[in-house]
Amino acid sequence: MPINYTEIVKTLPSTVPFVGPEAQERLLDKIFDARIGANESVFGPSLKALKKMNEAMNGIWMYGDPENYDLKKAIAKKHNLSPENILVGEGIDGILGYLVRLFVEKGDNVVTTDGSYPTFNYHVNGFGGILKKCKFKNDFENLDELLEKANSCKAKIMYVSNPNNPMGTLNSALSIQNTINGLNDSTILCLDEAYADFVAEESLPQISVDNKQVLRMRTFSKAYGLAGARVGYTIGHPDLISSFDKVRNHFGMNRISQLGALFSLEDKNHLNNVLIKVKESLQKLEIIAIKNGCKVIPSSTNFIAIDCGFDGVFAKKVLNSLISNGIFVRMPFTSPENRCIRVSAGTEDDMKLFEKFFPIALKEAKEL
Amino acid sequence: MPINYTEIVKTLPSTVPFVGPEAQERLLDKIFDARIGANESVFGPSLKALKKMNEAMNGIWMYGDPENYDLKKAIAKKHNLSPENILVGEGIDGILGYLVRLFVEKGDNVVTTDGSYPTFNYHVNGFGGILKKCKFKNDFENLDELLEKANSCKAKIMYVSNPNNPMGTLNSALSIQNTINGLNDSTILCLDEAYADFVAEESLPQISVDNKQVLRMRTFSKAYGLAGARVGYTIGHPDLISSFDKVRNHFGMNRISQLGALFSLEDKNHLNNVLIKVKESLQKLEIIAIKNGCKVIPSSTNFIAIDCGFDGVFAKKVLNSLISNGIFVRMPFTSPENRCIRVSAGTEDDMKLFEKFFPIALKEAKEL
Repeated sequence: MPINYTEIVKTLPSTVPFVGPEAQERLLDKIFDARIGANESVFGPSLKALKKMNEAMNGIWMYGDPENYDLKKAIAKKHNLSPENILVGEGIDGILGYLVRLFVEKGDNVVTTDGSYPTFNYHVNGFGGILKKCKFKNDFENLDELLEKANSCKAKIMYVSNPNNPMGTLNSALSIQNTINGLNDSTILCLDEAYADFVAEESLPQISVDNKQVLRMRTFSKAYGLAGARVGYTIGHPDLISSFDKVRNHFGMNRISQLGALFSLEDKNHLNNVLIKVKESLQKLEIIAIKNGCKVIPSSTNFIAIDCGFDGVFAKKVLNSLISNGIFVRMPFTSPENRCIRVSAGTEDDMKLFEKFFPIALKEAKEL
Repeated sequence: MPINYTEIVKTLPSTVPFVGPEAQERLLDKIFDARIGANESVFGPSLKALKKMNEAMNGIWMYGDPENYDLKKAIAKKHNLSPENILVGEGIDGILGYLVRLFVEKGDNVVTTDGSYPTFNYHVNGFGGILKKCKFKNDFENLDELLEKANSCKAKIMYVSNPNNPMGTLNSALSIQNTINGLNDSTILCLDEAYADFVAEESLPQISVDNKQVLRMRTFSKAYGLAGARVGYTIGHPDLISSFDKVRNHFGMNRISQLGALFSLEDKNHLNNVLIKVKESLQKLEIIAIKNGCKVIPSSTNFIAIDCGFDGVFAKKVLNSLISNGIFVRMPFTSPENRCIRVSAGTEDDMKLFEKFFPIALKEAKEL
């Protein structure tokens, strides 16, 4: 007797959108010396927030506030908005799942860029949506083509990440705004701004929360250094925001994470220091890349795509060599973006290791 | 232009399955003096686990292992099972959501007890399932009726909590086993054992993980004192367990929570101490209840239902009085179970407060 799953579930593979570095460490039977592959912040969270989290740990026996009241208030203040414009969830990953569930049923079209965030695609497939994919254009998400495709197929959701992952490129505020203005009524724009904290405010679009067609995704996992705490949020019209209360796991937030995010917002010095350190590290990575005859894609994030100069097979060899030498990095999935490897900002020690092993990796890749 | 939600979502209210104590505190404009309403463990988690969690907090910048490898291994060891029999998730709440999504599509029948766990019902409604409800029988979940109803309506899922919440009653291992044996092929039994740690091993059913029709739900939120950490798990056949990989939020687990749960399992002394303290507190609550002319429902959990002797209107008045005096408690939603209030085990101070304010609450309820 087969197990009686839903029709959609029967069609789904048991996959993992990403293999975690821990799984690779178990395979290699050693811990990575440099963990610069998941765009985490090696510079860690605010020490003040860390102190508050440790102090609050005694209260871990209590469920967190299901309304995320204090945190929403603090986030709203950061953006000069009202708490009713903010939804807090278990990382952007969790919120993307809820978003897709709100809008996508079997056979609905959804538009994204091939090679962009796979976890979004995982959720779309998971709810029976049909992914219509555009290609990158010169390493940028192609807004014109995305818009045209979304409008022509009456997409329920159009996914745009800005800055983009895995290439690190930023589309201009004006081009994002024009894209929003061109949207059909039937489409919601999911604007994934996970890396927005690395971008100057004036380079990001001003989007009115009166617009019922846009949800912006933000996270504490990148610049705020709280990836392991699982805190993301989305910004939008109150009608959109309140609809998440229909489907979300109301008691899904970790109590200590709520506090960590809250106190992280207050420590602007730390954030500024992180932004400086990230910039320094990416400059160092660029120097290393150029010294080894490679180019880099200009990045607006905390990582950089290094063009290894050949195809995806070559870049994969470079990646494998780095990994076997204890350096965790990742690479794009699609061609021609997979001519690159993607390296996150790291500590000085991380950079030294990369500087040592990157030329070896290039050499091995050419010889293999 | 209306927002283009799915057909199911259009029918859903924006609700919260439970209002949290923090929301009540904001309304009352004061912090509860005794937090004994959500069956959390006031005795807290293992101090050894707490120490490990604080030590690990420096690593919060890293995502948790999406495979929950180490934690699954430790849980499997506890149950003499294999890691492939274990799925770790964001509390039982999160896992229930995934479970319903795996099996329930629009119009599918699901059987549960009216007045049992509302978050399960929230998920069933959220995926368009139709809830068929049985009534409690003398404060016990009525297994015979649940089974008959599940079989006659070809339910996709039958929900049983054992021990039960909110009444605290335990159905015998044999009766659970007989229920499983009587299930139609088309039904999965969701056996919610959130409170199983408070029950002697021999009073729980032995269920083979070869059975593809049963998933047992367990949590670190109750006896292990980690409610705010959001760690639950389910035990079952590898085919069932691996199917969660089709829909779950793979990176949804907090890194520190993974460790906290892991080290909690190792501290058996702490668990035993908690069980003793819970028993003492429930005995104290029973004495207070009887002294005030009330009865209690025999409990196999860390809470006790106190029969206030009249109807739901009366018990609600008792509840409101306690809350206004700074004591957070809850009560069942359905009649005649709502003749009771539900009080969690507490510290000695909590018990003193309850002893002081319970007679006042009864008096006020009689006068109102």
